[in-house]
Amino acid sequence: MENINLSAIKSPADIRQMDEQQLNVLARSMREALLEKLSAHGGHVGPNLGMIEAIIALHYVFNTPEDKIVYDVSHQTYPHKMLTGRMEAYTDPAHYDDVTGYTNPKESDYDLFSLGHTSSAVSLASGLAKARDLKGGNENVIAVIGDGSLSGGVAFEGLDYGATLGTNFIVIVNDNDMSIAENHGGIYADLRLLRDTNGTADNNLFRAMGYAYRYVHYGNDIHSLIEMFQSVKDINYPVVVHLNTMKGMGLPVAEADKEKFHYSAPFDLKTGEPFLQGESPEGYDDLFAIQVLARMKEMPELAVVNAGTPGAIGFGPSRRKEAGSQFVDVGIAEQQAVAMASGLAKSGARPVVALASTFLQRAYDQFCQDIALNHQPATFIVFYGSVFGINDETHLGFFDLGLLSNIPDLLVLTPTCKEEFLAMLSWSESQCEKPVVIRVPGGAVRSDSHVTILDDYSRPSFDIVRNGSRIALIGVGTFLPVMEQVAEKLASNGLDPMVINPREVSTLDTACLDSLRNFDLIITAEDGIVDGGYGQKVASYFGTSEVKVINLGLPKQFVDRYDANELLKECNLTPEQIAEIATSTLK
Amino acid sequence: MENINLSAIKSPADIRQMDEQQLNVLARSMREALLEKLSAHGGHVGPNLGMIEAIIALHYVFNTPEDKIVYDVSHQTYPHKMLTGRMEAYTDPAHYDDVTGYTNPKESDYDLFSLGHTSSAVSLASGLAKARDLKGGNENVIAVIGDGSLSGGVAFEGLDYGATLGTNFIVIVNDNDMSIAENHGGIYADLRLLRDTNGTADNNLFRAMGYAYRYVHYGNDIHSLIEMFQSVKDINYPVVVHLNTMKGMGLPVAEADKEKFHYSAPFDLKTGEPFLQGESPEGYDDLFAIQVLARMKEMPELAVVNAGTPGAIGFGPSRRKEAGSQFVDVGIAEQQAVAMASGLAKSGARPVVALASTFLQRAYDQFCQDIALNHQPATFIVFYGSVFGINDETHLGFFDLGLLSNIPDLLVLTPTCKEEFLAMLSWSESQCEKPVVIRVPGGAVRSDSHVTILDDYSRPSFDIVRNGSRIALIGVGTFLPVMEQVAEKLASNGLDPMVINPREVSTLDTACLDSLRNFDLIITAEDGIVDGGYGQKVASYFGTSEVKVINLGLPKQFVDRYDANELLKECNLTPEQIAEIATSTLK
Repeated sequence: MENINLSAIKSPADIRQMDEQQLNVLARSMREALLEKLSAHGGHVGPNLGMIEAIIALHYVFNTPEDKIVYDVSHQTYPHKMLTGRMEAYTDPAHYDDVTGYTNPKESDYDLFSLGHTSSAVSLASGLAKARDLKGGNENVIAVIGDGSLSGGVAFEGLDYGATLGTNFIVIVNDNDMSIAENHGGIYADLRLLRDTNGTADNNLFRAMGYAYRYVHYGNDIHSLIEMFQSVKDINYPVVVHLNTMKGMGLPVAEADKEKFHYSAPFDLKTGEPFLQGESPEGYDDLFAIQVLARMKEMPELAVVNAGTPGAIGFGPSRRKEAGSQFVDVGIAEQQAVAMASGLAKSGARPVVALASTFLQRAYDQFCQDIALNHQPATFIVFYGSVFGINDETHLGFFDLGLLSNIPDLLVLTPTCKEEFLAMLSWSESQCEKPVVIRVPGGAVRSDSHVTILDDYSRPSFDIVRNGSRIALIGVGTFLPVMEQVAEKLASNGLDPMVINPREVSTLDTACLDSLRNFDLIITAEDGIVDGGYGQKVASYFGTSEVKVINLGLPKQFVDRYDANELLKECNLTPEQIAEIATSTLK
Repeated sequence: MENINLSAIKSPADIRQMDEQQLNVLARSMREALLEKLSAHGGHVGPNLGMIEAIIALHYVFNTPEDKIVYDVSHQTYPHKMLTGRMEAYTDPAHYDDVTGYTNPKESDYDLFSLGHTSSAVSLASGLAKARDLKGGNENVIAVIGDGSLSGGVAFEGLDYGATLGTNFIVIVNDNDMSIAENHGGIYADLRLLRDTNGTADNNLFRAMGYAYRYVHYGNDIHSLIEMFQSVKDINYPVVVHLNTMKGMGLPVAEADKEKFHYSAPFDLKTGEPFLQGESPEGYDDLFAIQVLARMKEMPELAVVNAGTPGAIGFGPSRRKEAGSQFVDVGIAEQQAVAMASGLAKSGARPVVALASTFLQRAYDQFCQDIALNHQPATFIVFYGSVFGINDETHLGFFDLGLLSNIPDLLVLTPTCKEEFLAMLSWSESQCEKPVVIRVPGGAVRSDSHVTILDDYSRPSFDIVRNGSRIALIGVGTFLPVMEQVAEKLASNGLDPMVINPREVSTLDTACLDSLRNFDLIITAEDGIVDGGYGQKVASYFGTSEVKVINLGLPKQFVDRYDANELLKECNLTPEQIAEIATSTLK
């Protein structure tokens, strides 16, 4: 049979009349289109290729959107978007950017939530189911969650509650035996056992949690999937349907290297090699991994802890192998990563926990209670906490600075260049006094061989990188070089601005601030939202003095798929704009 | 045999020579002493009475403190403290207050962490075990966790990781078939099955998570406990030891009403009645529960969601029964409570989630991602977010204000009296536009029949409760009446201060603030830490104006078992002190 004309598919209604043969052809056509887009455009490769058949079967069997499907992370929803009115975004290069990489209610009523953090789908779906029960509805409620996402605590909480609903609640576990990298956790032995026994093993995590259980061994076979989904449709109790799927299905290079093809930039379909060749630019992830790996060899008690995103912190497979038992991946379990670090430090190990800004939000309480309250000398490296971080609304790195710097006893360092970052890392690995957060600067790696390195970063100590008078420019992290540019502009207008690197944002160097009391203007700029951040502490400190204070940074808002430089311009954060603000304020 | 002379027990070494008969007498003597203290002093009754035997057996078998025990929540550690050098605090009324209610490393090397939030012990212990393995140690590492605490996501994350350690890791599950109130969650059916089958059921949550499994049916029998602990001592793989214990063991009223005697104020040992009789003062918890219960009857889609602390939000057993399926207890699972609310709101139900300030810290990410980013009109009631909240360092309510008010699109209301609280609650239950947090004022319930009630709290709108000139006093929540007292004092000194109730702290009423630009001084006071809070937003707003701004509130620090009024005095927050600050600043 020839390929299906994909552009004729405007909604799931268009596939519900098809026979299985047609659905199989549909899957083949969708896979071809997806491969073409992924190759040319990049995106989540493995998760989507593995779920084409299941998503077709879901929309075939269930009466979407009345029946409700919540996809965990929702990075596997390209096939869902293809079937729900957004085909063009996958077949026409001119429309590739019409859709986001995640479900998005602004795009379609078939998308229930904007989500991108893992492990929340079961909880969200449990709310939909409970609302249905309170209102007397009868729709099916379905959560789709991957095996990797099961390691997150909120997934457990959702499953635990969902089991008590006593009504229709269908949890599809999409088990491809992979997280972003390999899985870590005790539950994965049980998932393997279930796969190996065709779902018949007595030891069954899901039954132990109160669910009925079904297993589909051929999770990429539309016939098996339809049969199973039909059997659980309108079921009146909670059930887990465990699918054994193949991540990267249909793309040999992705099937062979699942970690590499979890997400990929544009790549050659045959070789799997990225189109953009040549030396990739130096990244803070590599700088971090190289230094910490070297240190591990001198310090057997040094452990790097990560929560399911090893590649994002510079620890690809070969470095993980090199680190051996000194590299700990706890699964997608940020709370565990942070609380475990407290235990590691308490017993004299040297934990270095590396997390992405957007995901560490899961562990606020552990930072507060297990680390800060207990004064445990663990080191935390925060990646992507920057306007130059991840630009999806679900993955913003705008909030960690205020979140962490307002926790008592937690030292939050904000290096401005690679030399300072590595010096702070080196100091923190060695000290046994304080919990330390080091927030990696945003954007391309910056080198400043003239930066002043300290032996001890434990006390607030401003670095005056340019002396001056009347006006002080405090540039936090990423914004130090911006403030240096501002200073140059102002100097060329006859002003003599001081430029300050505050080095840390959790306390104020009041001695230095006091020396600015005869200044006319202080401008702070930070790489995060202004509200609750660093600058407002400075403004408050000078609340009763004559010196004017202006706090610059990002507004408190969610923005989606923004261009960093455009956003900075909108927020008056370019050097030209800041210089203009300074000049007009001083008038 | 006569009672043991408890004061002779200075450390676990003193019980390790005892025979079982002596240990049984020891348990009896400890229980008598505990009952006497609990009756006279109050405290966690049920958890401690239920664990006397297990804690004796642990210290008898294991070589503490070299072998390490981490107690979850640590509210069950009174027997542990009795055996580890702090007996006097349980036998001599003059020393009752020498110890905190939780483990505390400042008190003893036998206490590894200061902790009071649930579900973290396994994670903390996993860090201790990993550190041991990195450093080549051979001590036993033991986590003690209750069945209720298993419902928290971080407990799952810890168990999931712990199973992969491959070395000595002993998890004692203290199963008394109760959380603070009854348990909720799918796992509890499995725990019951395991108890009912003497641990032999095939469906075994712990085995499914990768643990070896042992069961002790008589979890209050020292002989059985010693035998079991000896059998797992020095084990070289992860094991769960499941104890079937009796909460409140040995106090008939506590065995009969486990919820009432989870924690109790001083009470009569025979009747169980509290010594302080008479009408208890009106509380915001009751006000909340009464109003929301009445509303439930008109709105079948209204659901109150709570995470394992129903009594603390006014929902004792009878109100829970009255609310029926409209009251949801998700277990000690704040992430689930908040994420589920997103699903409830999405499908048109009206969720009202009530949480304690200190515990909602667990759900920051769900507030940010599942609620705010998705604009779900759920209502959140924050209890104990105040200096007048819970005064243990582990349970401070100082941080929620900054935490929540800096999340985009989340409206954080700060009522100042019961009339305003109930009006805001009523409005929020009805509206379908915004996620709303209502932060219950601290201290005794305050009535102000003159408070201006709005039909709509969705837009920032200052309430000028006293008109004035030159000086404006902005009192957030609990601090409005304080500011009114300040105003009286200042007025009696010839000043004419304005007093403002900002009503909400997530946005500024810039129109009103702009009208203050010709004022000399604005003082803000808020019931939380200053850093990252409301006042600093006001200071920042006026950063370039002539008006002086002073931000008052709590310093960024952990304080333990503080006296609220003393703390306020230390922080310059009494009306007299604030008036003095105003006067001296205006000079």
